[in-house]
Amino acid sequence: MAQLNHETTTGDVLSAYLQGQATEFLRSLRLHRESTTDAQGAEESLLAARALRRAARRIGGTLHTFRPLLDQEWAAGLRPELAWLSGTLAREHAYAARLVRLLDALHRLSGAPAVPAPVAAGAVAGGGRSAGRNGWAVPRGADDQSSAPRGLTVGAAKAAALLERQLTLARTRAHSAALQAFGSSRFHAVADNVAVLASEVPLTRATDDLKLLAAGAEEELTNAVAALPLGQAGHPYNAEALTHGLAADADAAPEAQDVPWLKTRDLLRLHRYAREVLAGCPGDDLRLADASRALDRHRDAADAASAAASAARTPRIAPATAYALGVLHADQRHEVEAARFAFHQAWLRETEAVSTP
Amino acid sequence: MAQLNHETTTGDVLSAYLQGQATEFLRSLRLHRESTTDAQGAEESLLAARALRRAARRIGGTLHTFRPLLDQEWAAGLRPELAWLSGTLAREHAYAARLVRLLDALHRLSGAPAVPAPVAAGAVAGGGRSAGRNGWAVPRGADDQSSAPRGLTVGAAKAAALLERQLTLARTRAHSAALQAFGSSRFHAVADNVAVLASEVPLTRATDDLKLLAAGAEEELTNAVAALPLGQAGHPYNAEALTHGLAADADAAPEAQDVPWLKTRDLLRLHRYAREVLAGCPGDDLRLADASRALDRHRDAADAASAAASAARTPRIAPATAYALGVLHADQRHEVEAARFAFHQAWLRETEAVSTP
Repeated sequence: MAQLNHETTTGDVLSAYLQGQATEFLRSLRLHRESTTDAQGAEESLLAARALRRAARRIGGTLHTFRPLLDQEWAAGLRPELAWLSGTLAREHAYAARLVRLLDALHRLSGAPAVPAPVAAGAVAGGGRSAGRNGWAVPRGADDQSSAPRGLTVGAAKAAALLERQLTLARTRAHSAALQAFGSSRFHAVADNVAVLASEVPLTRATDDLKLLAAGAEEELTNAVAALPLGQAGHPYNAEALTHGLAADADAAPEAQDVPWLKTRDLLRLHRYAREVLAGCPGDDLRLADASRALDRHRDAADAASAAASAARTPRIAPATAYALGVLHADQRHEVEAARFAFHQAWLRETEAVSTP
Repeated sequence: MAQLNHETTTGDVLSAYLQGQATEFLRSLRLHRESTTDAQGAEESLLAARALRRAARRIGGTLHTFRPLLDQEWAAGLRPELAWLSGTLAREHAYAARLVRLLDALHRLSGAPAVPAPVAAGAVAGGGRSAGRNGWAVPRGADDQSSAPRGLTVGAAKAAALLERQLTLARTRAHSAALQAFGSSRFHAVADNVAVLASEVPLTRATDDLKLLAAGAEEELTNAVAALPLGQAGHPYNAEALTHGLAADADAAPEAQDVPWLKTRDLLRLHRYAREVLAGCPGDDLRLADASRALDRHRDAADAASAAASAARTPRIAPATAYALGVLHADQRHEVEAARFAFHQAWLRETEAVSTP
């Protein structure tokens, strides 16, 4: 792929990156179509959908960061469509991963051995674990509200069964929504646009420097990080992530304090994609990868904590189930706090390295 | 008080310390008796009981560490009696402090402002907070099992009311037990023995070095610390303290992993008292005080976590109450983990300072 040097123009570099990602998008789409006609192709289908989302995110991010160099109307029209597509595809994976995270946590909290995920290596981490295989022996009639809690392991088993039911249902719905999306005219329009991109990138005559635009993305990230409570996050066991964990007021709920972290996650992605454009190939700085992983963990744990809290609001659950869900919620909020600490460590390493050229 | 130098003998130093503590014991006992006849003397009574426990612990610890220098039979008889007395007196304070800790945590988790403790400064931290003042508006009929959970703050309020009921009852029983102990012939025998000690310490003719015996206490502590999982504790967010938090098997329950830490707390006390004997006066090394505070916090948080788990086993509680108690249990187990981390930091500072004289 093209390297950014004096012999290649700004347009060449940007075109090469976008064409590469568009080609990857179309290849994944073809793989996905072939795999879904095959009964044994579930894993291949998952991998193809993942590659498709990956390319869609990169194209969308690049259209945003380098928008002065691209046909404005075209880019502004395509970007939300790519976001819609990757969002729709991500949901099924997210529900599967969330269930695995929560069941693993319940096993850890109960001192039970974790159930190995039945999906083959290479698929999304444990994402294919099927319903009804959570490894818990739920006592017969255990969901009967009139039965007194017979110890907390019963509670953990019932919490696992409840989460499995709710998240499997959500996953099935997300799967249907994704299938529907693939058959929609809206999707075909996105695919057509990406096919155009693969052959020719609609550049403007603007000569803005790629590095300057990439620096803009980095500055937005730096500003977002500066607004984070990093000092607090770097102090272990600050107990901040669980504050307001029992609040009724949604504005004070833990989710509100997650917002700047989730925004930073988005901006870190844009920064990483802009670096890829400049480098001409995918690949990541080790420290940025660590920071990125910490923010992924933050997002996953926060969503898992919400799912546990939401399951606890199911009517007529037994007190032991609710207790286990409370422990699980707090456990995942501490994971959120741990992720912030990990981001703090990775980020400090990053800025140190920058200040010592 | 006597300083350990060539002009004072081993016996003089030990006698001076024990006589000082015995005098303090008798003074506190007198204060306690006077205060309890006065209706406004509740706070004074708490302070006197605390001073009494403090002296009883120091006398008992000294009888143990320096036992070769003391009349064996006398020391072996008095020590368990002192432990019985300080244990009986400690219970009332412990229940009060546990309730304050749990209510403060529930307020923090709900984002509600903490209710200031109505006791005057100098009394045990918040220990005097009275029943019915937990600052929660529990909805009418909220304890009715048939009412669906109306949001988690209702759960937190009901959890607070339940804990307040249970721990206030336990505290009241402990108070009665303490009053009964003060009137018992068993107590009078202890007081008589301490009065003997205040006038004359029953020394043997053994000439063992005080420093050597104190070093023995330090070695026991060092061995106990070496057996702790300190490497793990020093890694923030290791999530170890909550492992098995939902286990039904008592041996795998979190309490089992607390045992070596609680033992270390006892041995650290013995080491600190032995240092006081050598120094001839109370007072602590700053690092040992930090390590000691961390282990106190470990014990308090572990007991609070157990109280929350135990309250969750109350029959017929609402799911929202059980959920709040689950969050609270996990929060306190993370406090346990934070305390282990704090001990690790304090202890490393300690040994560094020792190796750099």
